[in-house]
Amino acid sequence: MKNYKLTIQYDGTRYKGWQRLGNTDMTIQARIENVLSKMTGEEIEVIGSGRTDMGVHALGQVANFKTRSLMTVEKIMDYVYRYLPEDIVVTGIEEVDERFHARYSAVSKKYIYRIWNCKYHDPFLHKYTEHIPENLNMEAMRKAASYLIGEHDFSGFKSSRSKKKSNVRTLYSVDINKSECLTEMVFHGNGFLHNMVRIITGTLLEVGLGRMKPEYVKEILEKKDRTLAGPTVAPKGLYLLKVNY
Amino acid sequence: MKNYKLTIQYDGTRYKGWQRLGNTDMTIQARIENVLSKMTGEEIEVIGSGRTDMGVHALGQVANFKTRSLMTVEKIMDYVYRYLPEDIVVTGIEEVDERFHARYSAVSKKYIYRIWNCKYHDPFLHKYTEHIPENLNMEAMRKAASYLIGEHDFSGFKSSRSKKKSNVRTLYSVDINKSECLTEMVFHGNGFLHNMVRIITGTLLEVGLGRMKPEYVKEILEKKDRTLAGPTVAPKGLYLLKVNY
Repeated sequence: MKNYKLTIQYDGTRYKGWQRLGNTDMTIQARIENVLSKMTGEEIEVIGSGRTDMGVHALGQVANFKTRSLMTVEKIMDYVYRYLPEDIVVTGIEEVDERFHARYSAVSKKYIYRIWNCKYHDPFLHKYTEHIPENLNMEAMRKAASYLIGEHDFSGFKSSRSKKKSNVRTLYSVDINKSECLTEMVFHGNGFLHNMVRIITGTLLEVGLGRMKPEYVKEILEKKDRTLAGPTVAPKGLYLLKVNY
Repeated sequence: MKNYKLTIQYDGTRYKGWQRLGNTDMTIQARIENVLSKMTGEEIEVIGSGRTDMGVHALGQVANFKTRSLMTVEKIMDYVYRYLPEDIVVTGIEEVDERFHARYSAVSKKYIYRIWNCKYHDPFLHKYTEHIPENLNMEAMRKAASYLIGEHDFSGFKSSRSKKKSNVRTLYSVDINKSECLTEMVFHGNGFLHNMVRIITGTLLEVGLGRMKPEYVKEILEKKDRTLAGPTVAPKGLYLLKVNY
């Protein structure tokens, strides 16, 4: 058996998310599994580094699959590129150690959230950014984010659907940058709870809009109460940027 | 009567082009006219600087319309922004002299053609760029483009549907730039025949791919024969960038 690592970009707009769901082929995992199964004649299981929700994009999702096929990496690349839909692109394939597991071997992940922060939205980016026409106080947002850095119980920033055993995660950094109309927040952590990036972003935006004080973020962490945090922002602005191993 | 100048951005993907066509509302002109007519209670005619074809985009289309309405510019902006679809955005409105005519007053125009020039396409830009996986010889393309600069009869570079009286136009510049995977060509001229930018681009790409010598462009100009030029490239990579007055 050979074990292959895939790096994948996708526009998640029309999909129900990464994870295979019953018989629908409108998930990224199902699309890739279907192509690889057809290619190899085997029933291929593709293991992702983690799920992305409905409408969330990826610039560097990682997955792996095992096969008995003897095809070269180049042949697999060409086949997959040819048969995947235009909004899913495998940008790299490499053979890896049989113990490599896209989820368990992952050491850290980066997500990026993109905001169009000018009065009028951009007609080309409205499906790929969240539009906030109001001015955002970057300093207040950075201050609020600083309280989240480090190892914390992030129960206050997860969806009620999250059923992980532990809610303790380490956030290494939150970088917030603005360039003309585009504001980007990059989150780097050892793992993320369900909706954690979108709830943190929604909370930082409350701070940026002056509706919440930066220090209040500490209280949400301490009280572990989701209802105190900001809204879960739209999936269209969220991208899984990179998975580190 | 007041005369207003509009600056407009649109994602042309789902439209049949700028110009109103019978009863369909799937043209940019129809969408804007419908909103302005509803707003004013008058039958508004919107005059564009020129047509853009089906699937062509705009970053700076200009149009004008006349109205008896006494609404402020701010009120018009807000109304139009609210009622236009997400893929059409009016980015500016100003009151202009009654003699201003978006088409007749235009002095020059800039178009940009965008090419994704890496092996694999980008899932987010495949609707907004033409994908050319092969290496392009930029020097050869720039040399070929140099023969087109100046005043010429561009009959060799127009669609047979073009019915302008004169085929003489002046091309001021063609700038070709590559930055990582994105190659952009910016065309600046005093006017463009039907499909002229797309045929010139298709011809320059033939040169860039090594299928045509740069000097051959001179021959196409001299012979005024469309069949000698390259193919008409896809509309999805073309943007009306700016109209100068």
